[in-house]
Amino acid sequence: MENDPIITLTTDFGTRDGYVGAMIGVIVRQCPTARIFTITHDVKPQDIIGGSWALRNAWRWFPRETIHVAVVDPGVGTDRRPVLVRAGGHTFIGPDNGLITGAIAGTMIDVARVIENPKARAPETSATFHGRDIFAWAAGWLLCGHEWPAVGGPIRPHNLVHPPDESPRVRKDKRGTSIQGRALLADRFGNLITSIFGTLIDEAMGPRSIPEVRVNGTPVRFGRTFGDVDEGESIAYVGSGGQLEIAINGGSAAEVFGSAASVVVSVAA
Amino acid sequence: MENDPIITLTTDFGTRDGYVGAMIGVIVRQCPTARIFTITHDVKPQDIIGGSWALRNAWRWFPRETIHVAVVDPGVGTDRRPVLVRAGGHTFIGPDNGLITGAIAGTMIDVARVIENPKARAPETSATFHGRDIFAWAAGWLLCGHEWPAVGGPIRPHNLVHPPDESPRVRKDKRGTSIQGRALLADRFGNLITSIFGTLIDEAMGPRSIPEVRVNGTPVRFGRTFGDVDEGESIAYVGSGGQLEIAINGGSAAEVFGSAASVVVSVAA
Amino acid sequence: MENDPIITLTTDFGTRDGYVGAMIGVIVRQCPTARIFTITHDVKPQDIIGGSWALRNAWRWFPRETIHVAVVDPGVGTDRRPVLVRAGGHTFIGPDNGLITGAIAGTMIDVARVIENPKARAPETSATFHGRDIFAWAAGWLLCGHEWPAVGGPIRPHNLVHPPDESPRVRKDKRGTSIQGRALLADRFGNLITSIFGTLIDEAMGPRSIPEVRVNGTPVRFGRTFGDVDEGESIAYVGSGGQLEIAINGGSAAEVFGSAASVVVSVAA
Repeated sequence: MENDPIITLTTDFGTRDGYVGAMIGVIVRQCPTARIFTITHDVKPQDIIGGSWALRNAWRWFPRETIHVAVVDPGVGTDRRPVLVRAGGHTFIGPDNGLITGAIAGTMIDVARVIENPKARAPETSATFHGRDIFAWAAGWLLCGHEWPAVGGPIRPHNLVHPPDESPRVRKDKRGTSIQGRALLADRFGNLITSIFGTLIDEAMGPRSIPEVRVNGTPVRFGRTFGDVDEGESIAYVGSGGQLEIAINGGSAAEVFGSAASVVVSVAA
Repeated sequence: MENDPIITLTTDFGTRDGYVGAMIGVIVRQCPTARIFTITHDVKPQDIIGGSWALRNAWRWFPRETIHVAVVDPGVGTDRRPVLVRAGGHTFIGPDNGLITGAIAGTMIDVARVIENPKARAPETSATFHGRDIFAWAAGWLLCGHEWPAVGGPIRPHNLVHPPDESPRVRKDKRGTSIQGRALLADRFGNLITSIFGTLIDEAMGPRSIPEVRVNGTPVRFGRTFGDVDEGESIAYVGSGGQLEIAINGGSAAEVFGSAASVVVSVAA
Repeated sequence: MENDPIITLTTDFGTRDGYVGAMIGVIVRQCPTARIFTITHDVKPQDIIGGSWALRNAWRWFPRETIHVAVVDPGVGTDRRPVLVRAGGHTFIGPDNGLITGAIAGTMIDVARVIENPKARAPETSATFHGRDIFAWAAGWLLCGHEWPAVGGPIRPHNLVHPPDESPRVRKDKRGTSIQGRALLADRFGNLITSIFGTLIDEAMGPRSIPEVRVNGTPVRFGRTFGDVDEGESIAYVGSGGQLEIAINGGSAAEVFGSAASVVVSVAA
């Protein structure tokens, strides 16, 4: 027996206005067996980076062939393209504005398509609500038996809109390695998520070295989790998403350091 | 094979206190195959108009025979009636206070019933939580094989509580047509939703005329979407729900104009 | 035909960061037929009492054999134990910090186990996100065919962490009975939930007596629901969860009395 198709939703719509309900209705009406799960509807309005962050944390844990619909779409009604992207065995549907490419950064994009087949969209497409009329519609259309190549013509992956490069700068000299990055955003707990991946620190680290971390120039202890320091103390650790995070036990690192704080990790040679 | 029954929830309960969880449990225990979708639990406490707005945006996109449970219920524990309403092939369950009738305004009501059959309600009904003990209970009871006429005696549709009439005033003279309405509420993005339907503007419009829109007396450009104006500029357009909306690209029209702003649309003859 | 397994989630993660999405993915990937329902993700960060309150309001309404995953976990990464608890025919999974024991207070605990079987957890367990790597993982693992004793060794129920005792003080003398308790928390509507159960008031009440209620020394009318008093007036009533609640019709009792107000109920002999 085949399993019911699984679909996730990531938007900045909130739920208060019923817009998300309309998207769910559009999917369910086309595919009554769809299992629809919310990743979030609480992305800050038009915060593409925050939307990518939420989707990145969640998508890889779902089974292959899950369809992820993601809509944070300041350009709705302009000529930005609606796209379908395949990566890691999952399908992503949303506007071509860096939201999806940011969420799957590090995973090879197998294929991308413009969503342009009129049958994959609502018969009448509003200018303001592509979440319902294009993205949810296309997802429902795919779920009920159509194959993704039918949505429209191919796009070369490098022609998709990608988010700005936030790769940290790495300097190596005789004294060791220094990795310079920054906080990209704060999570709900006020923890800062940085641009520095734990794998990069691992590569730089010698067998017994412990990295030194400075946030806005202030030394911050490197540990495993905020349970490792006393209440009120700050700590840097590799978070559950693989990136270096800065937290204050029982407090908000975002308030203390700012949500775009500079972060430098140094490892002695 | 028949599809699993579909049910939606619209409340002002938030989720923090577990009240919605209790409603879901009541439904699932009676009907384990129920597919339950949230439209919203974030209606402002006791904001019947806001609840109607959310439900109106969502319900028609669901398949026929969906049951929509809607609970924004300042009168819980008083003698306001719990009702079941059938319209457009959908079933609505909630308090008789304008919440449902507001959501389905424009769709003919086929039938309405009081929910009074003791079997359709919890054996012990609390005075404060009819969302759980009457509305969710009745929905679960219907889903697991009972027919809606069994819930209780009929009500004439015009005897249901209806929201106040917000129809705009239309004036026609030699110079053209003027439609005077107002903002009814603001959505999460600060866009104002007005009482003026796009269909009314269409009727008034001559073949090549462009409507003039004034919000609190200030001219606002009429367009297709907020992408049509520069950042910081305001725009009026027919929104995804069919009503004229006022938005400010990258800003909040509700903050600038107030959430009950007067709105006048004029079309030259 | 057996029903699909049912699982509920109660966390303080919010949804904004995608952490809940990761938990859902972990469950669905192991058990694609799981029906996952949100009780809440809006518990105030690290508010164990608030999390217990939400779960207590909801869990008993679900069918037996539901699995409730609850994660409000200030001690993540320390040596607090991950546990599975069976009570009332339901299964609870979460940290051993009073969250679960608070939610099921009054229901006999049949069995408790440490979650320590490596197969019931993620192959690599992060130090900061046990919601995903232990609690959701164990739930998915159980759903897909494993029995709960397999998660790990038994714990005596009284060795679980229990929340502080908030039992009200009861004094009886010739004049009658007085019950002294306090507000434990405020719900979304600003209603105060107290430590005094209605059953305790019932026991103290004579056949025709009406209890006198004082909140911070101020008399508050005892009634059935906030519909019983005029707008702006305060009222005490036994809420849908069985506890005495204090509300102000159309206002916030929490703002007026404070969220830890003293509450005394007196019943004349």
